Amino acid sequence: VTAPRDPPRHDVRLRGFPDRASVERALAWVDRHAPPLGSEEVALADACGRVLAAAPAAPADHPPVARAAADGYAVRSADTVGASAYNPLPLRLQGADGPLAPGGAALLWAGAALPAGADALLGFDAAEAAGEAVEAIAAVAEGAGVERPGDEVRAGAAVGAAGRPLRLHEAALLAALGVARASVVARPRVRLVVAGAKGLATAGAAADVDGQLVRALVARDGGLAEVGPPAATLREALLRAAERPADLVLALGRTGTGPDDEAPVALAAAGELGLHGVALRPGGSTAMGHVAGVPVLLLPGDPLACLVAYELFAGRFVRRLGGRDPELPHPAREAEVSRRIVSAVGCVDVCQVRLVGGAVEPLGVAEFGGLAAAARADGFVVVPAPLEGYPPGARVIVRTY
Amino acid sequence: VTAPRDPPRHDVRLRGFPDRASVERALAWVDRHAPPLGSEEVALADACGRVLAAAPAAPADHPPVARAAADGYAVRSADTVGASAYNPLPLRLQGADGPLAPGGAALLWAGAALPAGADALLGFDAAEAAGEAVEAIAAVAEGAGVERPGDEVRAGAAVGAAGRPLRLHEAALLAALGVARASVVARPRVRLVVAGAKGLATAGAAADVDGQLVRALVARDGGLAEVGPPAATLREALLRAAERPADLVLALGRTGTGPDDEAPVALAAAGELGLHGVALRPGGSTAMGHVAGVPVLLLPGDPLACLVAYELFAGRFVRRLGGRDPELPHPAREAEVSRRIVSAVGCVDVCQVRLVGGAVEPLGVAEFGGLAAAARADGFVVVPAPLEGYPPGARVIVRTY
Repeated sequence: VTAPRDPPRHDVRLRGFPDRASVERALAWVDRHAPPLGSEEVALADACGRVLAAAPAAPADHPPVARAAADGYAVRSADTVGASAYNPLPLRLQGADGPLAPGGAALLWAGAALPAGADALLGFDAAEAAGEAVEAIAAVAEGAGVERPGDEVRAGAAVGAAGRPLRLHEAALLAALGVARASVVARPRVRLVVAGAKGLATAGAAADVDGQLVRALVARDGGLAEVGPPAATLREALLRAAERPADLVLALGRTGTGPDDEAPVALAAAGELGLHGVALRPGGSTAMGHVAGVPVLLLPGDPLACLVAYELFAGRFVRRLGGRDPELPHPAREAEVSRRIVSAVGCVDVCQVRLVGGAVEPLGVAEFGGLAAAARADGFVVVPAPLEGYPPGARVIVRTY
Repeated sequence: VTAPRDPPRHDVRLRGFPDRASVERALAWVDRHAPPLGSEEVALADACGRVLAAAPAAPADHPPVARAAADGYAVRSADTVGASAYNPLPLRLQGADGPLAPGGAALLWAGAALPAGADALLGFDAAEAAGEAVEAIAAVAEGAGVERPGDEVRAGAAVGAAGRPLRLHEAALLAALGVARASVVARPRVRLVVAGAKGLATAGAAADVDGQLVRALVARDGGLAEVGPPAATLREALLRAAERPADLVLALGRTGTGPDDEAPVALAAAGELGLHGVALRPGGSTAMGHVAGVPVLLLPGDPLACLVAYELFAGRFVRRLGGRDPELPHPAREAEVSRRIVSAVGCVDVCQVRLVGGAVEPLGVAEFGGLAAAARADGFVVVPAPLEGYPPGARVIVRTY
């Protein structure tokens, strides 16, 4: 294997990166090329967890009519004035279908509509059944045990909020209100090109690992991942993956400086290589570009580097496309460093860490430890480029898995 | 509609609860009847998120052999001593298949096995290609750029931990290690009996809402929910739902004191009614029992009461069966009450709350507001039975959705 003759400047194989983009520049590239997708109408049953394009409005007051808030007897409160265990007042039992006659009582279950004329609910603790009659043994105030129309939701009130996922309780409420459809942001369609990784014993195993990781993470971020159509060459694979309806192509592997790291070259041949090499460890061989107008990110094949590059760049791309919060989805927590975190000046280092008794312990340095470090980690710390790490005692933000 | 004649004591219809179990007693019932299920072997691809019955062990050292940690040339470090840009030392380029000859250099990509005889990696920044040769322009130390066998994982090391879900990174590592299967706790099989709710305009809509809520929550808690076989009566529905392989039956609706609240009576007829009525608001008509040895929980039909009873009792049952942490899965956070939370003495009240500027605001009282309260809430506060609520300024634990 020898280096290609007279390679173009963007071909870094066997030479190394002449320069690398800052993480900020790479993030700006993502933000510039990932506008939120349009909306689509879906059945309410499929809307839970989807980002609302518009908050549905309650079509009517809920409850629509005055109704019993508990099981009991609908009564006219005036008929119970003076009732007590020593002065039981008989009420005539009647059906709940028609209006309540003066001196009447109608058995209702919780949620049933109050008959016209009734203005309160007599609970079973305040009533005693007596054959065809029922005796009030306590007085009830007007409105007691009754839910009025619109008590839960007023007609026109928004349920949920545009720009954030519809929650389970909101979806259930909308179902109860009879809303059948919702307008949600389209799901980003992500095509994967498994270019082949080399970070493990066999390329096949690593490719599987990267694919498995990225598929699960795209799903977490609300996207739909599918492996792109097969093709004879990587250039062709990128071209085919970028066919409609792809919103984003993620190619995994072959991004580095080794002899067969042909993904950036293939991207330049198939379309445009916008950026290759980021001042990031691990994940520094990430590339970004376009094929036929579709954005393409090339993620490193080494599984830990693939994971970090996905989290920082690809995940943000997917979340932006899907109208979600673009920031890292991992809960952030401040904690104290108990063992020095070592980092390279000029590079953003993403360091896998454990939380031991609330304190932060690095798992090796950013570039080493592989997937095993991420598997043992409780989270990660992003060390900014100007720093050479954090000494014990420093307070840092840990992003927890 | 009239009350049944000479009803048994457990029939609370049209009478109300003679007494109610404390929430502690109901939780103890759950804990007594929900032992963790046995284990099953599943393909690794299906194990992610499942609770490990045993932590898989790494079958071999990883990496299995010494390998390049980056792209570059495998060399004998001794051959580079004294090399610099002013004193380039020529090395003879050779293949990486055989052992490295003295004075040789073999091109490797990151992750490739180091040839015998090589003990360091010369990066592209320390080498210059020169036709059939390569010139070292910097010295490298023994071991530089080389990962040793077992650096990531030692043979026999556990990946993941028994009793907690296998994480994505762990699953990916196991895939990389060639592990194909994992032993996980069986998934609880939950049969739903939609007994019909009455809390909304139409019973059908409410039943749908309850079923939708509970199916989503069972899935969240790691269970497999399916609607039980159809049946002519509620008693028969419970008997059929309890047929193998059900681990738990959840019946939704008809648990209260109204005339058609026949679920507890049906449970007593089909098997055994262990407990009916809990000192809890909402959700106080929850019941627990068995049919043919299979535990059965009856959850109230009103959607908010159904939700609360699921969260407190049914969810715990499902999580225990599945070997998960039985405690509430909602993140807990301490916060200050800004508007009084009203609660009934003698009852555990579950109050839906909003967090406004970090402070806790109740959304009505526990029993009112319906599903709309849960849809607007950021979480809930559990008010212990002895308290009549919390005054402004009190610090409480909020469980966030």
